[in-house]
Amino acid sequence: MNELRVALAQTNSTVGDLTGNAAKILHYMEKAKALGADLVAFPELALTGYPPEDLLLKPQFVAESKATLHKLVKATQGITAIIGFVDSDTDIYNAAAIASNGSLAGVYHKIYLPNYGVFDEDRYFKAGNECPVFTVGDSRIGVNICEDIWHALGPITLQKDAGAQVIININGSPYDSGKLSFRERFLATRARDNEIYVCYLNLIGGQDELVFDGASMIFDPQGTLIARGKQFEEDLIIADLDMRSLLRHRLHNPLRRKGRVAEPAIAARATTLEVSAPRPESRPPLSPKHVDPLGPDAEVYAALVLGTHDYVRKTGFDRVLIGLSGGIDSSLVAAVAADALGPESVVGIAMPSRYNAPESLADAQLLATNLGIEFHSIPIEDIFKASLGTLDQLFAGTEPNVAEENLQARIRGNILMALSNKFGWLVLTTGNKSEMAMGYATLYGDMAGGFAVIKDVPKTLVYQLSAYRNSIDGREAIPATVMEKPPTAELRPNQKDEDSLPPYPVLDPVLKAYVEEDRSFDEMLRMGFDETVVKQVISGVDRNEYKRRQAPPGVKITPRAFGRDRRFPIINGFKAF
Amino acid sequence: MNELRVALAQTNSTVGDLTGNAAKILHYMEKAKALGADLVAFPELALTGYPPEDLLLKPQFVAESKATLHKLVKATQGITAIIGFVDSDTDIYNAAAIASNGSLAGVYHKIYLPNYGVFDEDRYFKAGNECPVFTVGDSRIGVNICEDIWHALGPITLQKDAGAQVIININGSPYDSGKLSFRERFLATRARDNEIYVCYLNLIGGQDELVFDGASMIFDPQGTLIARGKQFEEDLIIADLDMRSLLRHRLHNPLRRKGRVAEPAIAARATTLEVSAPRPESRPPLSPKHVDPLGPDAEVYAALVLGTHDYVRKTGFDRVLIGLSGGIDSSLVAAVAADALGPESVVGIAMPSRYNAPESLADAQLLATNLGIEFHSIPIEDIFKASLGTLDQLFAGTEPNVAEENLQARIRGNILMALSNKFGWLVLTTGNKSEMAMGYATLYGDMAGGFAVIKDVPKTLVYQLSAYRNSIDGREAIPATVMEKPPTAELRPNQKDEDSLPPYPVLDPVLKAYVEEDRSFDEMLRMGFDETVVKQVISGVDRNEYKRRQAPPGVKITPRAFGRDRRFPIINGFKAF
Repeated sequence: MNELRVALAQTNSTVGDLTGNAAKILHYMEKAKALGADLVAFPELALTGYPPEDLLLKPQFVAESKATLHKLVKATQGITAIIGFVDSDTDIYNAAAIASNGSLAGVYHKIYLPNYGVFDEDRYFKAGNECPVFTVGDSRIGVNICEDIWHALGPITLQKDAGAQVIININGSPYDSGKLSFRERFLATRARDNEIYVCYLNLIGGQDELVFDGASMIFDPQGTLIARGKQFEEDLIIADLDMRSLLRHRLHNPLRRKGRVAEPAIAARATTLEVSAPRPESRPPLSPKHVDPLGPDAEVYAALVLGTHDYVRKTGFDRVLIGLSGGIDSSLVAAVAADALGPESVVGIAMPSRYNAPESLADAQLLATNLGIEFHSIPIEDIFKASLGTLDQLFAGTEPNVAEENLQARIRGNILMALSNKFGWLVLTTGNKSEMAMGYATLYGDMAGGFAVIKDVPKTLVYQLSAYRNSIDGREAIPATVMEKPPTAELRPNQKDEDSLPPYPVLDPVLKAYVEEDRSFDEMLRMGFDETVVKQVISGVDRNEYKRRQAPPGVKITPRAFGRDRRFPIINGFKAF
Repeated sequence: MNELRVALAQTNSTVGDLTGNAAKILHYMEKAKALGADLVAFPELALTGYPPEDLLLKPQFVAESKATLHKLVKATQGITAIIGFVDSDTDIYNAAAIASNGSLAGVYHKIYLPNYGVFDEDRYFKAGNECPVFTVGDSRIGVNICEDIWHALGPITLQKDAGAQVIININGSPYDSGKLSFRERFLATRARDNEIYVCYLNLIGGQDELVFDGASMIFDPQGTLIARGKQFEEDLIIADLDMRSLLRHRLHNPLRRKGRVAEPAIAARATTLEVSAPRPESRPPLSPKHVDPLGPDAEVYAALVLGTHDYVRKTGFDRVLIGLSGGIDSSLVAAVAADALGPESVVGIAMPSRYNAPESLADAQLLATNLGIEFHSIPIEDIFKASLGTLDQLFAGTEPNVAEENLQARIRGNILMALSNKFGWLVLTTGNKSEMAMGYATLYGDMAGGFAVIKDVPKTLVYQLSAYRNSIDGREAIPATVMEKPPTAELRPNQKDEDSLPPYPVLDPVLKAYVEEDRSFDEMLRMGFDETVVKQVISGVDRNEYKRRQAPPGVKITPRAFGRDRRFPIINGFKAF
């Protein structure tokens, strides 16, 4: 027995739903057994969902989660399972249970707790300080969790020294564009540096602002990728790891026995534990699983679709409602929603005003037809007139300004919310990241809704994704006229976005430098950006934190999203120029 | 020279405003010099404001903050100053500079970084590992920061061993009711346990959701409180600390030289540094400052006033706008705003509908008259009619429900925001904590606005605070009729809060158990609460996280507020019963 059949169950948990998550774990455990796997692994906190946030401060939640784990342990007859859960003694731990043949062989506690970006793990967990290695048949397995493997001198060094041949690294690693190739690069290096099999398992699914992309991977001890799972879909990645070839590889490695200068960075103890699951008598042959990664636009689009699907379904909504302006943002959101939920679950509402071009309504209608979604037009003129009349006395003697413009956006917000309240539909908002950054959106107006699908998508990427969407089913979903007309909010005669903002191809790179990279004023000038634009960006972004604080959540797709990922004070006297 | 004259400058910084904060530090430094102080201390992160959040991730901000510190160091001619700032080398630190006579004597780096409740310090700072003791004349002074002194075996033990006679502990400690007496109790114990003067300095002011209450305190080595500063106001607390009596006290202490069993909990190094400021030739005599603490209602009221004042003024608004329903919540908010900003800065707007009792308008008007604020009435009937007409076709065949109710609340939100956009006034919202908890509020309706003054005040406390406010200037501000009538949203005929919610005196204790204390279902039953109410509370609180996520910030006054203090997932499948 020089072969270990490993199954990585890349599942979609729901935060807090212990019963549902346990059922899913059982389901995949049976599937792995049927495929003759020696070992099946589940993602980080698969049992509680990730991240459970302040649910972790409820002793009741922690106790029930642990009780559920013990039921799962009993179900591991004939297999070894690694299950992410919350362990507790006098404190709580982000943990992996190693269970086999109905009993618990051991527990690993995560050592490196991320506390940056969207992560708050120091807030909740105590760090572990043991690095057990488990003997499964003839194979020796080290288990660790997520950030643990990012550290070259972390648990992997101790586990390797204690004889591990295979590392199972379970993750709750949120998606952003570009992260996949980064992961692949450093995991390959870890495998090769330690002459070890690296099994990287990541969950999938949407949780509030986050979407997890899966794409689990297995690397051989030379750092070669030997299996990869789907992105944004549940999957079972299964491979046979050959321990004999591992030994051959190690014996032929000229770097062997040179030792190392650096000590492991952690004060942790390595132990070895026997695991008892019998090997299956016979098992089906296996062809290794290798899913090619999506292209860049397809990847972001899939992230939006899954994030939207899971937010809507996991919060229990049947249908969604979208205000369709005939512009590209709402068109893309409608396409994402139709792809995520099915066109029958999407209702588009146009709300024309005196300032809307007739083409806008026609474009909205055509889009709805193309997507096959329900469509209604509700003109706002009567309410707008009544509102102006009501405010007439107090507004007397003032010039029309943003007040009259926002009034229209808020009447639309009110109509959508009335339909939401009447029929129980969730409103999706349509603002993009460029607008959110600059505050070019109306609070309680177009910002009103439960989920902001493209709030982390810069406007230039909105165009790219729309073109991508139009390319996939062979016929235009988003009308060409929508793609081509200049962006406008249509809240006053002849208004264009470019009256208030730099052209998006100019704006977006500056926003990226300021928001995602925290570049200083001087640095941005040195990067060659126009000084006026840079100043406009800094002021716009800083001044509008209060609006973003009241925005609905939406899918994070960039390395730094607004929301929990970027925590700025509203009261902020810092002058960046 | 056996006496050290210590001045604690309890200042109000603005996050990010390095120039303004530095000017304030200079101002109080000069004041302390004029009073003959040997040493003046400033609060935790006094230079940057607390908490600077992700501003700390901007290298530009860190660099400018350090450059500003060096200007302040030069200004310490003739005095020793302790200044909270952000230090940096290859990482950043929550730091205290000890500067004297124009040069920097040393820097202390905070060792214990809080990362719970409203705190995220692990996200930003590297922890220090040195505990310097500074010799100022004949006195030996240990400086540490905020949570450092909460740990009995923390820096204070090392600093005492290294000869410290005085601990200067600088804080950014946010207010909640009841915290003051807790602080007093443990600080007295620390002083007595270590036979040391403890000077506890806390900042004041509002920052987004937080308000800092000052109430700085000095304890002698027997644990006796010898000076206390004002709550919620800037103050300079000054006292002469007598080192000769400290020595006498230590020599007479029977516990002396018994040593200890426990080692300090930290791996830190104690050092001693000389500080060079000359003693003032002569100085004015001093009568110790001792401000009595406010009563419980006065304290919360003062917290709301300061929090509101600072949010409005630090974000640069001149006037605020409040929707006055004639109910107690909006009445209290108007009273707080008038006290915080002056009545001339407050505009009250009644927006009567077909469902409002005529008494509601009269009560709102009387309140405005009592407070001396500008008042307008804007009936919403025309807009409501136009809205129902517009929705008529889509609503055909449905029963009136929450949709028609919320429509009215959102029309009011729209009117207030239109006035806000037209005149540049900030809208204050009026929802209380009981409503926020149960979701008994309309998103984009009565929840629309920039600052939610009483969002952390339970309804029963709203009554108490209103009674308190009426008691202080000898004549009724909030009309008796407002205090007495049953709470109602007046969004349908004869609606009462009690149709939807348990009576507030029943509801509030259950909310406290669930929201603030994370009690389980079983525990709450054992506490004697009614099962139906407990279930209603758990469902109501859990289901409405999405609303709270879009609520404006407001002053935290309880040990656990909604917002950054309680971080719950929106997608949450946990069933607590």
